[in-house]
Amino acid sequence: MTLFYFLDIIGIIAFAISGSLMAMRKKMDPFGVFIIAFATAVGGGTLRDVLIGAQPVFWMKNTDVIYFIVASYFIAIIFRKKLKYLNKSLFLFDSIGLGLYTIMGTEIGLNANFHPIIIISIATMSASFGGVIRDILCNEIPVIFRKEIYATACVLGSIVFLILHNFNVNNAVIYVSTTFLIIAIRLVAVKFKLSLPTFYTKE
Amino acid sequence: MTLFYFLDIIGIIAFAISGSLMAMRKKMDPFGVFIIAFATAVGGGTLRDVLIGAQPVFWMKNTDVIYFIVASYFIAIIFRKKLKYLNKSLFLFDSIGLGLYTIMGTEIGLNANFHPIIIISIATMSASFGGVIRDILCNEIPVIFRKEIYATACVLGSIVFLILHNFNVNNAVIYVSTTFLIIAIRLVAVKFKLSLPTFYTKE
Amino acid sequence: MTLFYFLDIIGIIAFAISGSLMAMRKKMDPFGVFIIAFATAVGGGTLRDVLIGAQPVFWMKNTDVIYFIVASYFIAIIFRKKLKYLNKSLFLFDSIGLGLYTIMGTEIGLNANFHPIIIISIATMSASFGGVIRDILCNEIPVIFRKEIYATACVLGSIVFLILHNFNVNNAVIYVSTTFLIIAIRLVAVKFKLSLPTFYTKE
Repeated sequence: MTLFYFLDIIGIIAFAISGSLMAMRKKMDPFGVFIIAFATAVGGGTLRDVLIGAQPVFWMKNTDVIYFIVASYFIAIIFRKKLKYLNKSLFLFDSIGLGLYTIMGTEIGLNANFHPIIIISIATMSASFGGVIRDILCNEIPVIFRKEIYATACVLGSIVFLILHNFNVNNAVIYVSTTFLIIAIRLVAVKFKLSLPTFYTKE
Repeated sequence: MTLFYFLDIIGIIAFAISGSLMAMRKKMDPFGVFIIAFATAVGGGTLRDVLIGAQPVFWMKNTDVIYFIVASYFIAIIFRKKLKYLNKSLFLFDSIGLGLYTIMGTEIGLNANFHPIIIISIATMSASFGGVIRDILCNEIPVIFRKEIYATACVLGSIVFLILHNFNVNNAVIYVSTTFLIIAIRLVAVKFKLSLPTFYTKE
Repeated sequence: MTLFYFLDIIGIIAFAISGSLMAMRKKMDPFGVFIIAFATAVGGGTLRDVLIGAQPVFWMKNTDVIYFIVASYFIAIIFRKKLKYLNKSLFLFDSIGLGLYTIMGTEIGLNANFHPIIIISIATMSASFGGVIRDILCNEIPVIFRKEIYATACVLGSIVFLILHNFNVNNAVIYVSTTFLIIAIRLVAVKFKLSLPTFYTKE
């Protein structure tokens, strides 16, 4: 098993748990929770595969993905009472998924020889789309439109990935450092309530 | 005309009528009603074709589909006053569409040689997506997230289909019995207010 | 540069500006405004390419599209205070985008040899989808479901395009006249508060 595949699976697990937690917070029935977990976990990658034309989409070619989602779903259900700080867990798993999905999108875009600006777009879209679907289905304001820095972290992470890749840095180093960068940006942004400057003057 | 094609068309008609009824209940204008009818009828199949990579999607390759949707739309408009029990009609047509679309998805997944768990996913997604789009566009709570058993019926139907298929049961028998099973599960679930057990303790 | 490509770009710019204006009206942060501008500008064309199977989608093959969207975004931000009549500007840019996207969809459908009724469907879908995404993301009632004539203008424009094309009228004449027709239909419809006749009797 390659490092890339391993990170891939961790990203999917993180998003599946974040989806399950959000759906349980909304008191959905067991099947509804599973649908949200599934949609959050595979949403971004499915959009990515459909837009670049890599069909059947990834989870149809690799059944393991579905088993990992099912396992994450049960883990989230079993540990739901231990997760006293539900919002913090949700935030953490969402950030991990965001970081790893950005790496996946950038790597896949690179392999398909797209222009850097397209690679960054694909990475940002595929990383944030799972969370957006989750929020829309759970009737929350989509995470990319909230005050926190979200998609901006993906853009920065993907740019750093491409720069490091250009300097022929080892792939394992790129994957791990970029993922941590994205998670760190989010943690710092939320901790210090950082948000993008606004261009609206107060009325 | 094969039995499969016939059931296909009936499924599309049933969903087109269910979409028209919902949109008229929301007092949409004639074009809006048509859009909802169209989206409900082709939504699931379009998602299925895009995910497995069978493009152009089915209704672009077979103009008959559009004629049948137009006809269903006019039938729903003409008979809208006879349909005194609008909610019951809506539920019935929705259930018929759900059953038939599950069969289609399972059959197409089998022909493409997917793993059984992927086939069940494709069948469930394509069967429930039309109703989900209809409900989102009409600003209703999506049917899969309501208390009633909905996607669960598709999963069960698709599993029974695969088991019968494994025992080499005649296709016509499989199609008809599985469709009736799915419709029956929904009827019984709604009649007796059955829903999935919940894992939330009352606070 | 061909006339077709030029109109293409103008359509994308018009939708990008309409998306930016709507997002700024909703007081989104700079990145949120960009996402809405991007989704509005490429949404319809992306749906079209995915449904007909022309992937990677158009903006992945032509980086210019992204540069034009970025430029439109900055123009909308810089001139936002001059745009005193924000609603009127929004309506105008939306109508221009609608007209030009209908032309693109019809032309692409013709080149792919689809049946006329499919061409009209593709053109209408791709023209109205950008505005629908914009409105859903901004939490407005989708423009196709408002009282005004919207998708109906695309249908009429696409039909006129096909009729003129059948009489071998020069392409430049078809493009320009059909676009103006669609914009004119919308302007007249909104000016005189025209809407489709309803089939509901008042209760």
